[in-house]
Amino acid sequence: MLEKPKPETVQRAIGELAALFGNRLVTSQAVREQHGHTTTWHHNEPPDAVVFAQSTEDVQRIVGVCAKHAIPVIPFGTGTSLEAHVNAPLGGVSIDLRDMNRVLAVHAEDLDCVIEPGVTRKTLNEHLRDQGLFFPIDPGADASLGGMTATRASGTNAVRYGTMKDNVLSLKAVLANGELIKTASRAKKSSAGYDLTRLFVGSEGTLGVITEITLKLAGIPEAIAGGVCPFATVEDACNATIATIQSAIPVARIELLDEIQVRACNAYSKLTLPEQPMLFVEFHGSSAGVAEQSERFGEIAREFGGGPFEWATRAEDRSRIWQARHDAYFAARGLRPGTQGLATDVCVPISRLAECVTETQRDIVENQLLAPIAGHVGDGNFHVLLSIDINDPDEVRRADGFLERLVDRALAMEGTCTGEHGVGEGKLKYLAAEHGEEVLTLMRSIKRALDPQGIMNPGKIGS
Amino acid sequence: MLEKPKPETVQRAIGELAALFGNRLVTSQAVREQHGHTTTWHHNEPPDAVVFAQSTEDVQRIVGVCAKHAIPVIPFGTGTSLEAHVNAPLGGVSIDLRDMNRVLAVHAEDLDCVIEPGVTRKTLNEHLRDQGLFFPIDPGADASLGGMTATRASGTNAVRYGTMKDNVLSLKAVLANGELIKTASRAKKSSAGYDLTRLFVGSEGTLGVITEITLKLAGIPEAIAGGVCPFATVEDACNATIATIQSAIPVARIELLDEIQVRACNAYSKLTLPEQPMLFVEFHGSSAGVAEQSERFGEIAREFGGGPFEWATRAEDRSRIWQARHDAYFAARGLRPGTQGLATDVCVPISRLAECVTETQRDIVENQLLAPIAGHVGDGNFHVLLSIDINDPDEVRRADGFLERLVDRALAMEGTCTGEHGVGEGKLKYLAAEHGEEVLTLMRSIKRALDPQGIMNPGKIGS
Repeated sequence: MLEKPKPETVQRAIGELAALFGNRLVTSQAVREQHGHTTTWHHNEPPDAVVFAQSTEDVQRIVGVCAKHAIPVIPFGTGTSLEAHVNAPLGGVSIDLRDMNRVLAVHAEDLDCVIEPGVTRKTLNEHLRDQGLFFPIDPGADASLGGMTATRASGTNAVRYGTMKDNVLSLKAVLANGELIKTASRAKKSSAGYDLTRLFVGSEGTLGVITEITLKLAGIPEAIAGGVCPFATVEDACNATIATIQSAIPVARIELLDEIQVRACNAYSKLTLPEQPMLFVEFHGSSAGVAEQSERFGEIAREFGGGPFEWATRAEDRSRIWQARHDAYFAARGLRPGTQGLATDVCVPISRLAECVTETQRDIVENQLLAPIAGHVGDGNFHVLLSIDINDPDEVRRADGFLERLVDRALAMEGTCTGEHGVGEGKLKYLAAEHGEEVLTLMRSIKRALDPQGIMNPGKIGS
Repeated sequence: MLEKPKPETVQRAIGELAALFGNRLVTSQAVREQHGHTTTWHHNEPPDAVVFAQSTEDVQRIVGVCAKHAIPVIPFGTGTSLEAHVNAPLGGVSIDLRDMNRVLAVHAEDLDCVIEPGVTRKTLNEHLRDQGLFFPIDPGADASLGGMTATRASGTNAVRYGTMKDNVLSLKAVLANGELIKTASRAKKSSAGYDLTRLFVGSEGTLGVITEITLKLAGIPEAIAGGVCPFATVEDACNATIATIQSAIPVARIELLDEIQVRACNAYSKLTLPEQPMLFVEFHGSSAGVAEQSERFGEIAREFGGGPFEWATRAEDRSRIWQARHDAYFAARGLRPGTQGLATDVCVPISRLAECVTETQRDIVENQLLAPIAGHVGDGNFHVLLSIDINDPDEVRRADGFLERLVDRALAMEGTCTGEHGVGEGKLKYLAAEHGEEVLTLMRSIKRALDPQGIMNPGKIGS
């Protein structure tokens, strides 16, 4: 395991980088802190320096200098991490990839594109719109696609379009030894060796720095329909979701908001939804197709006591609803201004979802916490959005205990400690319980094979 | 790299295994040869012994003995390999998993099941039918699901349902050190560490022996429609396929047969199709949905001069067509009885497919080979089914040259040397050209991290 490098070693490395990169190397405290930042309550752990890379060759040079001096390398996208992925517990060099933001190619016939890692998903979708294409993965934040790849991001569309795991065709990465590799061709499928693409997707910068990504694209659907449907209980909403998935209705989005989250969204986004558990749904397809899907979903919802089903046929109404869903985190924080927000996630087999959400709600109430729940329920994935007074040690203790129990509950139900937020520093302590020590040893041996010095994002997966 | 173990070492290991497994250890020449067999022209390379495992513990014991003596371990499913995946170039022990054939659990609400690796896909689908579920991956052969997982199999349904990569939720594997690991929970998605599931899918027995698999399932569609549509040229058929995919028609199967393959199928399967390039298509969905999809496909086909479109609405007519497609390999061999069959595959971005197929057809003619083409064209993947007189050295030489050029052509078009057949021994020599030496070094370092002695299926990926 890498140890914190000596200050003089770090200074030597920074000196070499300064010679190479001039004012693209920044050591000001503000910039360093912004790069060792997370959007939740993890402590800021700034790197020693930030370099703004403009090319793959830049990344190779930076990694080369860091490898020579055995100091950490931390790739940085837009900094929307919720689990301290970009924190620098041992210092080192943060590589900011925002300037590597070119769309290198769009192959409309092949439904793919080649991009640099700093391109954000909104920028990409604006770029694609004229060609009738879009990139469907939508984690809410306008994250960089490099970060989304590195963290195996997903979000609201995953129930239909999959996660980053399913939508990265190939990638280039700079390894710890400075070598550049390409994981796969542009063929839609291949059986030609180990699946290095999937090994890098979700590796959180611990195996290399992703410098180019080939993404699958989808055609913009001919028709989109969507709406909101209230239910008496979370269980009814979950059961309606299970029935929808089982009936093979190709729902594009199916999102649960619990009653507290609906209240928060009403306040924050100026909506007037009934304050009870609610499904937000969206269907993609032909005009006839979405009409049929909508109708069949409506029938299923009614079977489980849901309704009335309010349709948002106009694009602006739909946008308003989905913007509210995306703003759920801020809405939740708005319920208790001035406190620390903390968004966490777990994922369980869908058959256990209602039970998991219901027990979690009970736990929240029993521990006097304020924590709305919102989730990608088609995948069995949900978020708890805590607001914590970090000046109240007892509340912090109760929140800590709640988070531990939430993970224990998900694991006991054959689930995972994180469906999409990733490990970072925040969930590292749960990996042994989820996978067992043998698997952690295996992950560490893979990490060591690719990064013998342990310089790539230390203190995260594989440490 | 592992060297061929000394005969006395092998005998000691076999002695220990005989003591543990009695008559479940077999050393007869016929059984050994059957386990070092491939369905094409690769030479038979039998293992020294075959053990029929009945449990994960059996596998752990076998691997334990082999590890102790440093002799090879080769997992064996049904032996339908086309690229010598199960050959034993250094001898060693073949673990036959056919008796590990239990369906351990079906979770209908979660659309998943847990199985042992010896379950074949047809057996699984019979088991599931009463519950309205099916496992969609269909490589043609009634392969074991362990083998399909190990080789990242796909087939006709992949354009809609993905490959094994997309349909394995989790697996258990016995590592080279005898330890049992489980790669993931039963949650539909997770960001909790390296994607070990995908690392094992397609690893072809070189990282461990897969002993349990959790598979995603799909609901049996309410309606299935399909048919056949002739085109004037392969190019027209490919362009109709591209337009179909781009129009987001969720086609379940779209298969190209070239004119020679159609002629072979007519003869072998007693069909009366016009002998010209042909698409076989199938749509899954609601009754209204498949009707709409069919109609839209028909319009696209007409745009590219295709037709008349013959619909097979009756299940038995559909079965007959798809059976003919599955029998394409045997049909191809039937064109020239007594010769050696050899099925190979490549995969290219779909925009290059017509060009790749057309150039390949020209190469076949120029080299006086008999080789029909059939392909999963929605994925850009196609097969060439050669019939070779192996007693004619000049023909063998021409076939060899053709195979090399086929791969070169696919790689030059940003494709892969194998879309679904896998590497085995047959395609090992192409990996450097496809991936580059740095990637091969990386694959070898992963292999070494998991299997330091190199005992797991040596002479294949990672060697």
